[in-house]
Amino acid sequence: MDFDARAHVREATLNAFNFRRATKAFDPSKPIDPADFDVILQAARLSPTSNGLEPFNLLVLDSAAVRQRIVDEAGGGPQWVQAPKLVVITTKRGAGLHADGEHITHMKLDVQGFPADDLPGWQEHFEYFLTKNLELDNDKLRLEWARRQAYIVLGNIMTAAALLSIDSCALEGVNYAVVDGILDQEGLQDKVKDQFAVAVALGYRAAEPKRERTRRPLEEIVRYA
Amino acid sequence: MDFDARAHVREATLNAFNFRRATKAFDPSKPIDPADFDVILQAARLSPTSNGLEPFNLLVLDSAAVRQRIVDEAGGGPQWVQAPKLVVITTKRGAGLHADGEHITHMKLDVQGFPADDLPGWQEHFEYFLTKNLELDNDKLRLEWARRQAYIVLGNIMTAAALLSIDSCALEGVNYAVVDGILDQEGLQDKVKDQFAVAVALGYRAAEPKRERTRRPLEEIVRYA
Repeated sequence: MDFDARAHVREATLNAFNFRRATKAFDPSKPIDPADFDVILQAARLSPTSNGLEPFNLLVLDSAAVRQRIVDEAGGGPQWVQAPKLVVITTKRGAGLHADGEHITHMKLDVQGFPADDLPGWQEHFEYFLTKNLELDNDKLRLEWARRQAYIVLGNIMTAAALLSIDSCALEGVNYAVVDGILDQEGLQDKVKDQFAVAVALGYRAAEPKRERTRRPLEEIVRYA
Repeated sequence: MDFDARAHVREATLNAFNFRRATKAFDPSKPIDPADFDVILQAARLSPTSNGLEPFNLLVLDSAAVRQRIVDEAGGGPQWVQAPKLVVITTKRGAGLHADGEHITHMKLDVQGFPADDLPGWQEHFEYFLTKNLELDNDKLRLEWARRQAYIVLGNIMTAAALLSIDSCALEGVNYAVVDGILDQEGLQDKVKDQFAVAVALGYRAAEPKRERTRRPLEEIVRYA
């Protein structure tokens, strides 16, 4: 890139991160263009995950009935009903996060084309990595390993949206166990294999935010050594 | 945006996500332009976090000696030494993640300008959110709440870099307890307040990746309802 192109890309990048605000109310008259939404899903798909193991799935939740259940029963905010698009991120759970489980075996052999003969050695290495290096020595903590990756996906969905001038809001403020129960009952996830991680509402803001954005200054965030 | 501008932004966005690969070897002759690096730090700073509580800090680690210690003692890969820039993401820990702790009180009152009189009510609400809704009922799990946010920051650092055609690699493959010990001993974090979350190497790839990128197809990742 030449100097002008580089300055332009810097500006466009900063603009996108400055544009993104946690959008509380969406304009119901402005749907998301399917071509834009496809870019957002591809950004999620192309997100990096630990060891490339993609321990997540996405649920594009258009169903007004299921959205309303999450508001009524799990305490979801108004965006759960209002957002033109709503993406639920689930992670694998339990055996789905074990090195010799169905998901990780599928990822290694079928998706990554890893040699089957080398799999036992890799499994041993991966279990050591999770239990010893990362100290995730039970299923509840290992679920968090998957959720960390889900939050990269969450961040990339919001950033891709912002690059397209589309608004978003991460939705954590629900009772997680109740959401899991609803998704299970509605047949939208397999409760043995999947677990709710977080959701994100997408659309166009109904109004400009009233409050200034607050952030610590960079000097408070960053240390140099 | 008009139609052509929109198509261009879609393409540029997809290109950035396709460009990003986990870069194993960096070209030592290509430093990162400080103006680009500043955009990357601003992307981290402007990242969304749960309740806007920014439970993280960044350490820009130029010190060759500390990087080498992490390779020698914590099992860090060659990028720990080689990368032109290396950003360590730490999170708050322990009391730093309690509603009435120093960090969160600072965020609410000083950064967000929240009314001091309303703070006790908010603290109660926030503790309920973390312990009941998110089921993070001990300090080790609450640390994971902070790490989830750190991974949004991680993702945004990598995406901002990719938008600028800068390569990156997330660095999880270390012994976390050993890294914490090194950062504490070197005076680069306060072991009572901060804890290592993840790091990211930044620079320019030494060579094009040999392997094709592997990802599940979108149909396997996404379900619609």
